[in-house]
Amino acid sequence: MSGTLVAASVSDALLAAREASRALAAATTQLRNEALEAVAAAIEAGASGIIEANGLDLANGRENGLTNGLLDRLRLDDVRIRGLATAVREIAVLPDPVGEVVRGSTLPNGLRISEVRVPFGVVGVIYEARPNVTVDLAALAIKSGNTVVLRGGSAALGSNRALVGLIRSALESVGLPADAVQSIDAFGREGAKELMRARGLVDVLIPRGSAQLIAAVVEESKVPVIETGAGVVHLFLDESAGLETAIELVRNSKVQRPSVCNALETLLVHRAAADRLLPGVLSALRNEGVTLHADDEARALVPDAVPATEEDWAAEYLSLDLAVRVVGSLDEALEHIRTYSTHHTESIVTNDAANAERFLAEVDSAAVMVNASTRFTDGGEFGFGAEVGISTQKLHARGPMGLRELTSTKWIVRGSGQVRG
Amino acid sequence: MSGTLVAASVSDALLAAREASRALAAATTQLRNEALEAVAAAIEAGASGIIEANGLDLANGRENGLTNGLLDRLRLDDVRIRGLATAVREIAVLPDPVGEVVRGSTLPNGLRISEVRVPFGVVGVIYEARPNVTVDLAALAIKSGNTVVLRGGSAALGSNRALVGLIRSALESVGLPADAVQSIDAFGREGAKELMRARGLVDVLIPRGSAQLIAAVVEESKVPVIETGAGVVHLFLDESAGLETAIELVRNSKVQRPSVCNALETLLVHRAAADRLLPGVLSALRNEGVTLHADDEARALVPDAVPATEEDWAAEYLSLDLAVRVVGSLDEALEHIRTYSTHHTESIVTNDAANAERFLAEVDSAAVMVNASTRFTDGGEFGFGAEVGISTQKLHARGPMGLRELTSTKWIVRGSGQVRG
Repeated sequence: MSGTLVAASVSDALLAAREASRALAAATTQLRNEALEAVAAAIEAGASGIIEANGLDLANGRENGLTNGLLDRLRLDDVRIRGLATAVREIAVLPDPVGEVVRGSTLPNGLRISEVRVPFGVVGVIYEARPNVTVDLAALAIKSGNTVVLRGGSAALGSNRALVGLIRSALESVGLPADAVQSIDAFGREGAKELMRARGLVDVLIPRGSAQLIAAVVEESKVPVIETGAGVVHLFLDESAGLETAIELVRNSKVQRPSVCNALETLLVHRAAADRLLPGVLSALRNEGVTLHADDEARALVPDAVPATEEDWAAEYLSLDLAVRVVGSLDEALEHIRTYSTHHTESIVTNDAANAERFLAEVDSAAVMVNASTRFTDGGEFGFGAEVGISTQKLHARGPMGLRELTSTKWIVRGSGQVRG
Repeated sequence: MSGTLVAASVSDALLAAREASRALAAATTQLRNEALEAVAAAIEAGASGIIEANGLDLANGRENGLTNGLLDRLRLDDVRIRGLATAVREIAVLPDPVGEVVRGSTLPNGLRISEVRVPFGVVGVIYEARPNVTVDLAALAIKSGNTVVLRGGSAALGSNRALVGLIRSALESVGLPADAVQSIDAFGREGAKELMRARGLVDVLIPRGSAQLIAAVVEESKVPVIETGAGVVHLFLDESAGLETAIELVRNSKVQRPSVCNALETLLVHRAAADRLLPGVLSALRNEGVTLHADDEARALVPDAVPATEEDWAAEYLSLDLAVRVVGSLDEALEHIRTYSTHHTESIVTNDAANAERFLAEVDSAAVMVNASTRFTDGGEFGFGAEVGISTQKLHARGPMGLRELTSTKWIVRGSGQVRG
């Protein structure tokens, strides 16, 4: 029932999600795309209701002392709501990952085996204040034939309730079960805990939000988790780096959008190039308002930098701050990265092909780059059309996760009475 | 040091494994294959020492009251040791999964991106008495560029120590670090717990053994686990099934090797075919010594069957026992499977193409079969050449896991100064 946003309990919600997952898995590509079109239209048509609910969330947020930054992330207006609908339509036109034959063969005994892409079933998402995640993840789940159980941040409670209600009505309007998209926000923290313990009912759990939120989910969950990522992102200016390229790549990596996980956090510079590169690079950053946290050697070249401490090397600032360190060699840079990286994204700026290849081979991160801004680690930029998050673990998915990463596979075996000898 | 089988602590062992993983990841395909040949030769040359150590394990086992079945699984003789070496050589000649380009493209801005297969890094294995797992997993890890930390069963302590010592010497003989293969058996249960908590140091943990062992690891581990499988495996005789095919497939699925996870545990029969099929099928099973646990309807046809209880539908017997139930329709069979299956392997015997396709589409298991013995869910049978285990979870790997499933990927991005606009 589209009006009933909330099951009587989390376990009821999960059982309903499991039941609905059969309908989603059986739905044709066309029907799932029609559902997404209906979702987009419902969001546009329901804009005034969304804005009203969002207004109450914003008022509560101001009362509860949310920062302006958080209030801005929470805010929905007509432009942003049109953006939500557009994002859903962009997901609708992506290729369907379900049904793809990953590999297959005919065995010597005549058995035909094939590994076929199938939906996970039930995807859980635990996330924070941005209501666009509600719409994005619901749309990605529908597209990939999954059902989704959403646990959003309390600051966006009303906005999320409005959005989920519209999505559920849209699903029903095309004949799919409303329970394919459910929120368990009403069950509070206990509900989130129950979601994390629901191994067997939930196939995969995706935390989206702060490093603390992700760490808490990884620590507590019995359901398989895809860890999405904190990024202590490094860029290394090798001895041979050109000054102009160095300035452009460091500036773009750091300031183009400092609040996201692929933004640069630590700059490493080869000692033999520090005199030549650092003054220009750091002066460009200062002009952008970046505070530098530098080791002694770098501070000799940029005296107004703050002295860096051990904490700076491990910091994911997500702000206009940058740690800067001079290293003696590529090996020292690699060693620093091994010690402090969160294995998200690292980039080398170099004109030395051998050093570029060593960096690509030896850095153990989801994305390793040569002469490119770290900001490119992104599902949209990679051409996936939509992004579930950026995985920093090695199991199942690594780097930007698109629709494919929301699927599993199964083996189909067709025989004519074969037995094993 | 090949003589030093045991680090001072589990955390030392894990740090050594992490360090060694860099050498393994950097090793060429040829070097890793040479290492495997050296391992095979060392096992052959060390046979007398292995048999001696195994003899002590067997004597201890007898003293501790191990069943004959367990003693047999523990036993190593010349033939079995040659079999271990042969298995290693078979792994050596398999294609190298490392370095495979999974996908790639050139973005409109000229960035060249590619997703490349890389080793996980450090693989943990927690397993029970069979010492062949020690050799198999070490060989699979070396082949796939990983290091492995092994925690075997206490019953095989001496055998495993002898095998790991030989493997470590073989690694050193080709210039690879001995610490690529380590045992933490000496640290007992606390060591196993530490391994399960080592998120960040261990990339993936694979439990191999009883359902209880796997459940305990899944419950406790903070490291991502690949759940390998308990199999409550079903075979459904559809209304149109032929008698001879039914007899052959049920017999092979149940009795060819009853102790393994892909052996049949529950037989479902369409009511309209029960009179025609059950007497012949069940008589063939009785001739093989199978005890039948049947519902009332089936017992009317085979009066000597034991009455089935709710526990039988959920039982993974791993023995010459079979649960038998009559169902009214394909839908009822699907419902029973949804309720009791562990999502390992299910098979339908049918001559009805539409029912076959429905079964393949709707059964949510790692392997779903038509007219084939359930015993075919096996890495060797599927042509993988070696098997890490059979995954019954949906994340990362599903069904028989080969070398590919022991790898992750990373994204390589090659640019010429691109920045994000």
